[in-house]
Amino acid sequence: MSSLNIVGLCGSLRAGSLNRMALNLAGASLPEGAGFEVLDWRDVPAFDSDVLAKGVPESVSSLAARLRQADGVVIATPEYNFSMPGMFKNMIDWVSRLENQPFAGKPVAILSATTGPLGGARVQYDVRRTMMFLNAMTLVKPEVFIGMANTKFNADGQCTDEATRKFVGDQMRSFHAWIQSVQRMAA
Amino acid sequence: MSSLNIVGLCGSLRAGSLNRMALNLAGASLPEGAGFEVLDWRDVPAFDSDVLAKGVPESVSSLAARLRQADGVVIATPEYNFSMPGMFKNMIDWVSRLENQPFAGKPVAILSATTGPLGGARVQYDVRRTMMFLNAMTLVKPEVFIGMANTKFNADGQCTDEATRKFVGDQMRSFHAWIQSVQRMAA
Amino acid sequence: MSSLNIVGLCGSLRAGSLNRMALNLAGASLPEGAGFEVLDWRDVPAFDSDVLAKGVPESVSSLAARLRQADGVVIATPEYNFSMPGMFKNMIDWVSRLENQPFAGKPVAILSATTGPLGGARVQYDVRRTMMFLNAMTLVKPEVFIGMANTKFNADGQCTDEATRKFVGDQMRSFHAWIQSVQRMAA
Amino acid sequence: MSSLNIVGLCGSLRAGSLNRMALNLAGASLPEGAGFEVLDWRDVPAFDSDVLAKGVPESVSSLAARLRQADGVVIATPEYNFSMPGMFKNMIDWVSRLENQPFAGKPVAILSATTGPLGGARVQYDVRRTMMFLNAMTLVKPEVFIGMANTKFNADGQCTDEATRKFVGDQMRSFHAWIQSVQRMAA
Repeated sequence: MSSLNIVGLCGSLRAGSLNRMALNLAGASLPEGAGFEVLDWRDVPAFDSDVLAKGVPESVSSLAARLRQADGVVIATPEYNFSMPGMFKNMIDWVSRLENQPFAGKPVAILSATTGPLGGARVQYDVRRTMMFLNAMTLVKPEVFIGMANTKFNADGQCTDEATRKFVGDQMRSFHAWIQSVQRMAA
Repeated sequence: MSSLNIVGLCGSLRAGSLNRMALNLAGASLPEGAGFEVLDWRDVPAFDSDVLAKGVPESVSSLAARLRQADGVVIATPEYNFSMPGMFKNMIDWVSRLENQPFAGKPVAILSATTGPLGGARVQYDVRRTMMFLNAMTLVKPEVFIGMANTKFNADGQCTDEATRKFVGDQMRSFHAWIQSVQRMAA
Repeated sequence: MSSLNIVGLCGSLRAGSLNRMALNLAGASLPEGAGFEVLDWRDVPAFDSDVLAKGVPESVSSLAARLRQADGVVIATPEYNFSMPGMFKNMIDWVSRLENQPFAGKPVAILSATTGPLGGARVQYDVRRTMMFLNAMTLVKPEVFIGMANTKFNADGQCTDEATRKFVGDQMRSFHAWIQSVQRMAA
Repeated sequence: MSSLNIVGLCGSLRAGSLNRMALNLAGASLPEGAGFEVLDWRDVPAFDSDVLAKGVPESVSSLAARLRQADGVVIATPEYNFSMPGMFKNMIDWVSRLENQPFAGKPVAILSATTGPLGGARVQYDVRRTMMFLNAMTLVKPEVFIGMANTKFNADGQCTDEATRKFVGDQMRSFHAWIQSVQRMAA
């Protein structure tokens, strides 16, 4: 029985975020027994190293603690102006400055949902580069790009598109296996 | 006599930012008669389209107005985790949502200062891609990467490195001519 | 009456290339009076600076001459292994070494066709970065990504997809105007 | 005793390539007992899927066989026009089309040497993206960028710069450990 403990990070702050729906779909697609929780990072303040010099804010240290405990992190993010949403990147900037940096060696999977047709084809490579800098162990494939996502989730946030359900399910099965491989590698 | 009105945006929020020093150097390197002012964007809040739906915050609309009035924008930014500082990107995300989007057709120059040796070689291409999305007219060359910047500015924020002074001066001369070309093109 | 003289470069060498079909569609979509010719670069040899030291091959110098004479260049390329086809890049590498480098100041438009769903979302930014290095004046928008291109052209190489015809037509109209703007800027 | 069998690929074809010197330095920096050989790919022809349809050229299949046998691949490449040398990419394009694609699961390390100051900061991320597509297991850190490389190797191709020798040595030690981790993961 799997007892992996996986967390999700949504790149968007809005309540009705399509990426939050995609994240919920990812969580529901994990093999039975895997725990899944979407982490709230709304309270992370603006990064400013003058602020850091006075101490790490509680919202940052508690988020980082949750990331460290997780066996894997699923990121679902929109694309803003052909790159990462600024606030999402700001959250990463904060936790990146902590001792025992939480993404180091951490299995990470990335998906993106957009209302445009490409589904985030630009933002994912920026997320990958940033995760690379942080020494995360990012799943390579399958990649998941959910284009025209507003037509693929209903008002209750359920995914109504079979192909999308299959892609996300395949990715989560691969991610589950990837986490186990990384743990074996570190052993 | 030139009467171009140029503004600067610093990617970092900290008081002693090396990029602010670089921005000041850029401003001082502009041809005589060009006006230069570094804009403060610290008060721009977290972008959230639920917030936008209630109206554009005053800090955002006044910043956007200043950008629209400018003949050109100089961006100086550090590199955080191999990409743009999140808060800097968040500021761009906000102004990008306004009608009469302020970067459209705007001449932009990019420089970056880092304490590492590469001087921002990764972040500049992300800034360029975002500016491309916003239809800015970004100066292509010369590129300015200020590596080991902490050794090139003194405690008063003055640049003590001749090569850096020259590179930035060359870029600002090119930028001045670029602004005039873009204005001629739009005429 | 327009008398612009525009050339096309296809990223693929195979006879039945979807990008060659896309290039033909682009040429046929140009405003009346604009000339269009797809250039053949198959004979450009492997770039090796030891070879360059002995002189520029005729296939390279004649290609460069044709590029220099053109008012604009349309590039249509597939994506190989998430970047540019090597031989296409090799052709650019060769002409980039010539005096009076032919892409300098040249208006360029980029489109890409792939059998996969994203239509070349990764390769286009690499082409843009390379064109930036060469001081080309690359059209920013509209971007054209032709995904699942094998379903959008028939056996005669004609585009059967209305949306694609419209996107390419819009891009070529914008490109035509862009060429005129760049010529005005240079005047 | 280590008996790892590592091969090198040089991105440049010229005889006096600085990247070949860097590759030799890398090979000499491997822990004792590791075998190292630089593979010659000059005979790989232009990729054209019409050619592939007639069969895989011997130069390609024998190169691919050598890559498959290797425990790890060290890539040292210059940067041409802000991306990969076309011929180097063409070689990758060819081997990528083979059954039992040779980079799949293969440990890869990347370094780059340039005469400019940045040392290949742009090209390495394109190599990484292509390797990602091919499911290679690319070493994340340390990154090695050898800027102003023409001042760091002597006429005999020996590296005269202590810092460079140390960086490359550190990378090769990390790569050696990475290969062992990947082999443990696959076990």
